[in-house]
Amino acid sequence: MASKKKLEPAIIQKIMANHNNNELLSRYNSVRQASVSMCASLEPETCRIQPSLEISPPWWNLAHTSWFFVRNVLEPFKGAAESHDALFDYVLNSYYVALGPRLEQGRRGLMTRPTMKEVYAYRQSVDKRVEALLMAAEPETIKKLEPIILIGLQHEQQHQELFYSEIKNILYQNPPNLRPVYKKNIKPKSNQNKSTETRFIAFSGGLYEFGNLEQRWCWDNELPIHKFYLNDFAMQNRLVTNGEYLEFMQDGGYKTQLLWLNNGWNHVQQNNWTAPLYWEKIDSEWQIWTLSGMEKLGLQDPVCHISFYEAEAYASWKGLRLPSEQEWEHAARSSGITTKTGNFLNSGYLHPVATHGNGLEQMFGDVWEWTNSYYEPYPGYQPFSGKLREYNEKFMDNQRVIRGGSCVSEMDHIRLSYRNFWKPETRFQFTGVRLAK
Amino acid sequence: MASKKKLEPAIIQKIMANHNNNELLSRYNSVRQASVSMCASLEPETCRIQPSLEISPPWWNLAHTSWFFVRNVLEPFKGAAESHDALFDYVLNSYYVALGPRLEQGRRGLMTRPTMKEVYAYRQSVDKRVEALLMAAEPETIKKLEPIILIGLQHEQQHQELFYSEIKNILYQNPPNLRPVYKKNIKPKSNQNKSTETRFIAFSGGLYEFGNLEQRWCWDNELPIHKFYLNDFAMQNRLVTNGEYLEFMQDGGYKTQLLWLNNGWNHVQQNNWTAPLYWEKIDSEWQIWTLSGMEKLGLQDPVCHISFYEAEAYASWKGLRLPSEQEWEHAARSSGITTKTGNFLNSGYLHPVATHGNGLEQMFGDVWEWTNSYYEPYPGYQPFSGKLREYNEKFMDNQRVIRGGSCVSEMDHIRLSYRNFWKPETRFQFTGVRLAK
Amino acid sequence: MASKKKLEPAIIQKIMANHNNNELLSRYNSVRQASVSMCASLEPETCRIQPSLEISPPWWNLAHTSWFFVRNVLEPFKGAAESHDALFDYVLNSYYVALGPRLEQGRRGLMTRPTMKEVYAYRQSVDKRVEALLMAAEPETIKKLEPIILIGLQHEQQHQELFYSEIKNILYQNPPNLRPVYKKNIKPKSNQNKSTETRFIAFSGGLYEFGNLEQRWCWDNELPIHKFYLNDFAMQNRLVTNGEYLEFMQDGGYKTQLLWLNNGWNHVQQNNWTAPLYWEKIDSEWQIWTLSGMEKLGLQDPVCHISFYEAEAYASWKGLRLPSEQEWEHAARSSGITTKTGNFLNSGYLHPVATHGNGLEQMFGDVWEWTNSYYEPYPGYQPFSGKLREYNEKFMDNQRVIRGGSCVSEMDHIRLSYRNFWKPETRFQFTGVRLAK
Amino acid sequence: MASKKKLEPAIIQKIMANHNNNELLSRYNSVRQASVSMCASLEPETCRIQPSLEISPPWWNLAHTSWFFVRNVLEPFKGAAESHDALFDYVLNSYYVALGPRLEQGRRGLMTRPTMKEVYAYRQSVDKRVEALLMAAEPETIKKLEPIILIGLQHEQQHQELFYSEIKNILYQNPPNLRPVYKKNIKPKSNQNKSTETRFIAFSGGLYEFGNLEQRWCWDNELPIHKFYLNDFAMQNRLVTNGEYLEFMQDGGYKTQLLWLNNGWNHVQQNNWTAPLYWEKIDSEWQIWTLSGMEKLGLQDPVCHISFYEAEAYASWKGLRLPSEQEWEHAARSSGITTKTGNFLNSGYLHPVATHGNGLEQMFGDVWEWTNSYYEPYPGYQPFSGKLREYNEKFMDNQRVIRGGSCVSEMDHIRLSYRNFWKPETRFQFTGVRLAK
Repeated sequence: MASKKKLEPAIIQKIMANHNNNELLSRYNSVRQASVSMCASLEPETCRIQPSLEISPPWWNLAHTSWFFVRNVLEPFKGAAESHDALFDYVLNSYYVALGPRLEQGRRGLMTRPTMKEVYAYRQSVDKRVEALLMAAEPETIKKLEPIILIGLQHEQQHQELFYSEIKNILYQNPPNLRPVYKKNIKPKSNQNKSTETRFIAFSGGLYEFGNLEQRWCWDNELPIHKFYLNDFAMQNRLVTNGEYLEFMQDGGYKTQLLWLNNGWNHVQQNNWTAPLYWEKIDSEWQIWTLSGMEKLGLQDPVCHISFYEAEAYASWKGLRLPSEQEWEHAARSSGITTKTGNFLNSGYLHPVATHGNGLEQMFGDVWEWTNSYYEPYPGYQPFSGKLREYNEKFMDNQRVIRGGSCVSEMDHIRLSYRNFWKPETRFQFTGVRLAK
Repeated sequence: MASKKKLEPAIIQKIMANHNNNELLSRYNSVRQASVSMCASLEPETCRIQPSLEISPPWWNLAHTSWFFVRNVLEPFKGAAESHDALFDYVLNSYYVALGPRLEQGRRGLMTRPTMKEVYAYRQSVDKRVEALLMAAEPETIKKLEPIILIGLQHEQQHQELFYSEIKNILYQNPPNLRPVYKKNIKPKSNQNKSTETRFIAFSGGLYEFGNLEQRWCWDNELPIHKFYLNDFAMQNRLVTNGEYLEFMQDGGYKTQLLWLNNGWNHVQQNNWTAPLYWEKIDSEWQIWTLSGMEKLGLQDPVCHISFYEAEAYASWKGLRLPSEQEWEHAARSSGITTKTGNFLNSGYLHPVATHGNGLEQMFGDVWEWTNSYYEPYPGYQPFSGKLREYNEKFMDNQRVIRGGSCVSEMDHIRLSYRNFWKPETRFQFTGVRLAK
Repeated sequence: MASKKKLEPAIIQKIMANHNNNELLSRYNSVRQASVSMCASLEPETCRIQPSLEISPPWWNLAHTSWFFVRNVLEPFKGAAESHDALFDYVLNSYYVALGPRLEQGRRGLMTRPTMKEVYAYRQSVDKRVEALLMAAEPETIKKLEPIILIGLQHEQQHQELFYSEIKNILYQNPPNLRPVYKKNIKPKSNQNKSTETRFIAFSGGLYEFGNLEQRWCWDNELPIHKFYLNDFAMQNRLVTNGEYLEFMQDGGYKTQLLWLNNGWNHVQQNNWTAPLYWEKIDSEWQIWTLSGMEKLGLQDPVCHISFYEAEAYASWKGLRLPSEQEWEHAARSSGITTKTGNFLNSGYLHPVATHGNGLEQMFGDVWEWTNSYYEPYPGYQPFSGKLREYNEKFMDNQRVIRGGSCVSEMDHIRLSYRNFWKPETRFQFTGVRLAK
Repeated sequence: MASKKKLEPAIIQKIMANHNNNELLSRYNSVRQASVSMCASLEPETCRIQPSLEISPPWWNLAHTSWFFVRNVLEPFKGAAESHDALFDYVLNSYYVALGPRLEQGRRGLMTRPTMKEVYAYRQSVDKRVEALLMAAEPETIKKLEPIILIGLQHEQQHQELFYSEIKNILYQNPPNLRPVYKKNIKPKSNQNKSTETRFIAFSGGLYEFGNLEQRWCWDNELPIHKFYLNDFAMQNRLVTNGEYLEFMQDGGYKTQLLWLNNGWNHVQQNNWTAPLYWEKIDSEWQIWTLSGMEKLGLQDPVCHISFYEAEAYASWKGLRLPSEQEWEHAARSSGITTKTGNFLNSGYLHPVATHGNGLEQMFGDVWEWTNSYYEPYPGYQPFSGKLREYNEKFMDNQRVIRGGSCVSEMDHIRLSYRNFWKPETRFQFTGVRLAK
């Protein structure tokens, strides 16, 4: 079989921070510990539920992220092996054809093994062995280990973010009177206050560069750096709010076929969508399901848990459109915005909040912002080499790019050139909308 | 709305054993304890899995059988109420329209609540309250309580039997190397020995009576006693064995459309049936999944986990047929066979075993025997009155009667007139076949 | 493979009318001509439509009934062969595995060939060749030909009846303003007149004989004659009317789950049944689709185009039940009713009509009457031998018996012991209900 | 409801050819006649078949294109009305919400009306009335009529192309021995000759303009003219041949998951794809279904009837990629290629043919070429105004652009900036592949 070219993008090597053994281990431990902490309060029962194909049970999330290090670090670098490595291999391979046979995705919620005790033991065993490997490694080996360890940790952070959207959905499956909250007493939100007035900020068109210009660690899909021509455009200064989205609903948005893409309308019909996911009208008051339980809808908060189709129909109703991912990236970069001020996981809200700032606000954190861009390879794209080449490439089909991270992303996981993506009908992610024209 | 007649069959009152308070409580405690014991060894993780619509997770089995007493005993008889009664009501109502709204059957495996701790606390609370009710009841009340308590306990025994077939299926969902056994070291089976030669025993036709002639406690579907005319017939002296069924397979049974009912053939095609459920050919040796793990196929053991369609196709291949439920009942009754010698739950095998007897063997226990009779109301049938009238009647459509109980039935739950039933494609039950002509 | 016993039921031979060549040909020509006549007014376009799996297009109906004689008469009896015999064989075999590979049932509506011209040419060619065969046959051969010719003609009459229910459904697929009527100016019906008052006629129980006691030509499923014990019972003197059924609807019948068998309720929900098939409420008046177009609902006419589930729910609402097929047969036989007075095809109504008689009315013709009996083999049943053994047996699963024929049956096709059957959810047949208790 | 901006793109007005009455009528008659001619040889039976959701029956194609003029020309411009206009309106509206209620797309194959006679009468009536309208129109009205008439004729040409791919599929539904050919004796193809050797032609990157630069009549989706930056790239000099594609198949292409996009692999699995549509291996020789019947596979002919997924997997196997639509357009434009030499409908082949040219070959005609570009609105896109705004916009979701027209396109319908599009799994179109790097 004629093989594809398999060149590791040179730039990835260059932008490594050149950690030494201790630094790498410290980073490793910090990310790995976060996974355990986030699940600490869960009953074993909660950890087995798979509500739909794409929402995996917590046990799998915790175990799969460990498996990643077994197959991509311990195995190729001759770390210690243990019996559960082979035992769990089949159920923990997500989709890597090159890594052997695997459990069908939809069957993760049918497994009674490994139990949570076994999962935690597996994690500890993997951590101990990775630590041993890292501490014993010569500098030359560290250099080879570093990229793959970093990928593993970024991968784990992705699954941490996934976890928050998954657990929100899992707990929601229970009937209303039995739904446990994930975390009580989350810092109160500024629902009552009026958020910044909406306005549009103009940007000049031109031929600009895109991709990982900031030269931070990045995924293969953020490279190569390349040119793209933009027309003049304008972007909304902040995210669309629940209150604004409610106007769309009250104007018959979900009943007006002409506002929708054809596929979007089919989803509306087939699933009886009449509001974003997690909205419930109780005694004529809108409430929403959050990680702290049911709450009164905050009209000034960004709308969240809408699909691309809903974002697009909303824009259509306003006579406007969604930004492209290039517009989003250029707006953020040319405005000098950083992730620092974003409402990320560290804020502890686990929920998007209203803004009162006067610039280009809420670009990072709060909610992932749907763009009208398909998730495509950048011109000249080279996937990761070796067994991880499947990480991104094969999913580059009928998915739309979302940008900016959300209130359940780790701040240090997100960057300006970061590209996330989901199928256009996806609603369980923390996704919202900002308009462009 | 014109209402149906709602007469409690007088005979049921008559055949009650007239328990006093202590006797009734003792019977109650004994059956209730068996449910807890059978789940004692299970991890909480194992208790959440619902592999298919009809196979409920153990947590639900344990909680639903308690709910039955809350709604049908504690509530109508003014026993004590507790907060979890209302809390769990929605998820624990199986199908009783008259008892209010309920969770869709297919969503039981998506619940994270109640946890197993909560389920056990619920059971204990129910038991304490039923005990208080029973001990305080006047004889007049006991008389009213008795029939409904007995129904509740028979109902719980049905769920106990269901549990064994469910847990067998749940554990089987794991990939081979992760499948836990339910119970190790089950008494060795006589696989090696040759079982009794097959032969046919003749019975004379005539107009006979059928139904609960033995006047034991019984379900509404075993009444009224009625006449039915039988032609002369003959029945196989024992169950069909794995070895005999293997001949059918080796002769192309699963590939020969002409042997099958039309609907059966559709199931063969759609589900790629090539052997009974739980059979696996490993290194050219047939093995089967049991509650003690994978075992070598016992050629002399009765074939088990076949659907009605497979039983019928097998009979067709032999040029014979399945018995009717009336033939089965008359054969058992006229031969004076009792449940005493059957391989039931108390044998501890949890698996059908070969016979060496010389009479009409294996009529009780081992496997439920498919008959060619549809599950229909007996002429003059009256369902239970009140809220339990839905117990049987609405399911009397496209199900086939199975008779005799199985190796996972409680011996004292089964009787000569007992009618069980399943959809003809069902395979996860302990079901087998005996031929007639 | 162990073969089933293949004895031709001796009785069938005996009850043959011993036709000579001319008589047989005359009978043949008469039935064959009726098929052509019934399609004479149809455009070629109308002849291709297959609205659902079980409703075949007219071209197929006409061609398949000819194919039957090619494969079962011309071929085995060495009649002349023609090239289209082989050409059309694949698409015209309905379900006979023993007669070779065949087109999937659901694809009949996708064929562009044979065209109607080719279908008519095929029919003529077959008829000419059968005529030649019959006229040249020695008495010994006629004796062998007679049973198979008669089966072929009965088979064709079944397809003629099917045709009327199929064409009714096919024409109904068009939007209301484009629906052609099949036959204009059908004799006006007595909708305005009040029909006979409903009452129940009592019959004494006992051990009776059932099956083809009248010794007319019959299908294998009407044999053998056998005994069956009946309790005392009573049957409604006439069919349930549209007006009576409307009361059930107005009382919330289609919304009251407790009235329905579980499977029936699922059909109601999934298909949004709120009235019989072909009922439409137009400007607050009920109208129904007939073979003469939309008509005002005749309140005194028998209700038609209801499924078994609707018939059963209606009976349940009345606190009554459906008759068994044995009760129906015994009532008809012991009352001395014949098919003579029935509203069959020859009346030209193509629609059930109100009765004004005072006896046991409408037993034959008008609508097929749902019984609560499953379609099962009679005790000792022997299917046809040879290639036609598949005619009935493999469909004896989850179908309910209907009795008495309908307004689109040929009178001489129906008899007292005739058993028809359909899946319980079927509505496109001319099916109605009579109550029993 | 906030309405979208509805500006008619000024440029469309400008590029009109300013036809006078006679010119417009002449163009009208010419295109309309072609639709009738292409169906002239079809039996009425052939005209009713709808093999799948997206493949409409010929009757509908012929009638719908006439309906377009009724609703968009006769009605708004006060042409004569006739009774069948209203009668057929419901079944002939394809998807225009703004034009009222309509028949579900999947039910077109269930209509028995209008018959072909009625369809042809309807066409004639429409033509007569449009002619009357055109001949009587003042210049001011002609100016308003011209754009909508031209859209109607372009629309009809699209349906003419669709017809050829639809009839090919419709005739293919018949079993092999009954499949009619659409047109016998198509000019013999140069299958035996060796086609031009494959090579890659280099193009320099840069910021180029795209869209309807040639200022011909165009669809809204070809505007506005806009800039796009291209990297250096190279394109294959000709289309991929059957012989080359066969190598991919023989190397296990359809069995190698790693070559496929994830969604593509799912289609391979679910539909058992093992070759392009219409390929059949008969006696170990590859044959393909053409509009002239089954033919031996021409190894030098362009591969045809492959989905985007197959095109992409083939490219992946070669270690190359598909061109973007901008690369395709720039390559064609900068090479000065015109549609003149393409193998279009007028060649009469109705099949792609091998090339022997030495330049950039086969860009126009033969097969539509899959690009890796999603069908997206160009920056600043404005849909048609009024009732035709739905023509394109709502389908801009998960479709891939195909370019260049095919052997069943009218030459004068295709132009350099023409954008066609289909869902990535589509195979019944005349689609093929050219590689890029």
